[in-house]
Amino acid sequence: MTYELYYWPGVQGRGEFIRLALEEGGVRYRDVGLLPESQGGGVPGILQALAARGRPRPPFAVPVLKAGRLLIAQTPNILLYLGGRLGLAPVDEAGRLWTHQLQLTILDLYLETFHTHHPLGDGYAYEEQKSAAKRRTKDFLAVRLPKFLGYFERVLVLKGGRGPWLVGPRVTYADLSMAQLLAGLAYAFPVASRRELRRRPRLRALHRAVFARPRIARYLASGRRLAFSNEDLVRHYPELDR
Amino acid sequence: MTYELYYWPGVQGRGEFIRLALEEGGVRYRDVGLLPESQGGGVPGILQALAARGRPRPPFAVPVLKAGRLLIAQTPNILLYLGGRLGLAPVDEAGRLWTHQLQLTILDLYLETFHTHHPLGDGYAYEEQKSAAKRRTKDFLAVRLPKFLGYFERVLVLKGGRGPWLVGPRVTYADLSMAQLLAGLAYAFPVASRRELRRRPRLRALHRAVFARPRIARYLASGRRLAFSNEDLVRHYPELDR
Repeated sequence: MTYELYYWPGVQGRGEFIRLALEEGGVRYRDVGLLPESQGGGVPGILQALAARGRPRPPFAVPVLKAGRLLIAQTPNILLYLGGRLGLAPVDEAGRLWTHQLQLTILDLYLETFHTHHPLGDGYAYEEQKSAAKRRTKDFLAVRLPKFLGYFERVLVLKGGRGPWLVGPRVTYADLSMAQLLAGLAYAFPVASRRELRRRPRLRALHRAVFARPRIARYLASGRRLAFSNEDLVRHYPELDR
Repeated sequence: MTYELYYWPGVQGRGEFIRLALEEGGVRYRDVGLLPESQGGGVPGILQALAARGRPRPPFAVPVLKAGRLLIAQTPNILLYLGGRLGLAPVDEAGRLWTHQLQLTILDLYLETFHTHHPLGDGYAYEEQKSAAKRRTKDFLAVRLPKFLGYFERVLVLKGGRGPWLVGPRVTYADLSMAQLLAGLAYAFPVASRRELRRRPRLRALHRAVFARPRIARYLASGRRLAFSNEDLVRHYPELDR
């Protein structure tokens, strides 16, 4: 089966959490947004997937994964599905739920990272909500970010010494997402995230270990991975970093 | 098995999505936050669950569900688990994923409803972020709320005429959560939500049908369901409603 991923072209966004799972899983997939419009790709291809004509169970937003006849939306839901298919989650129920729980918490932090520069939502440009963004970011860097990263470091400590991963001896999709989030934080808040990670050696090790996985390293080297940018959900505004 | 729910006492919050599933499922559960402190309840009982001493897989936040030896956190994750156990989700994979996808989208709208009055997060009191709240709410009521509710109404239309539910002929946890969200919106934005629901008869019917379920009606009549209030995640500030 060839998977099809539908996500806005030009940005990593939430699509990148899915891409990393597909890459680590070593499966073939069509990244529809990145195809030329003449091949059904680009923004029109994404809009068509969202319209989901003739489908009784339409998605609300991308990312959307087409897997055979299934059309699956919501990032954590797609990863829940792929985790079982690609061997990126434990097979026992407790392990599956725990991996999903971590993933949902990782995505909560991802959303809060987006809110630092867009606390009023994407109905307003950054320039129109800059002072709100500064206040929100102040609380994020002082309270929320240390709380989240402290939690994930604690999870790694409690798991003990069986490799650098969050769940068990094998890499899961939650590890891939955690590393992607850490990469995003390093882009958005180079100063603050370096300070926060100084005391969190296990998170640093997880980050390195994910991007050193042969398939992930090959993906990065391929040039297919898009760069972070200020068009993306995670952005770098130096005035917000401390 | 007696389930144990851990959630802050005094508010419905995210805990109420779990309560509605447990009530509709007709199972016994201890609502630990509502027990006296002398019985391990109240805020100290919740803090103890969050500390999760001696547990290798700690929760980040409540709600937390204790089910035998499992300790499950994250609202959609708990519902995913309970859906299978309590017959509140289809048993086939496509149906399970679709129910979960709807649940995640419902909770996205719930979070955006919270952000209307706390766009800068809970690090600041409402009074300290009132003008940001007004701007965020303006976009929420004009763009986001119609988009979400239009989507859910469309899902009901596409499903066609097999009862008032989102997924199939039987009620699921996503229906319970949808009705709870609509109740919250009616509390927070009586004017705007009445206007939005005027054109959405299927959502109105779903709302009524959930609260008319015998077990849910009995739960409401029991006096155990807490009232909405401005201590809760969904709040009513008349100046934000239009």
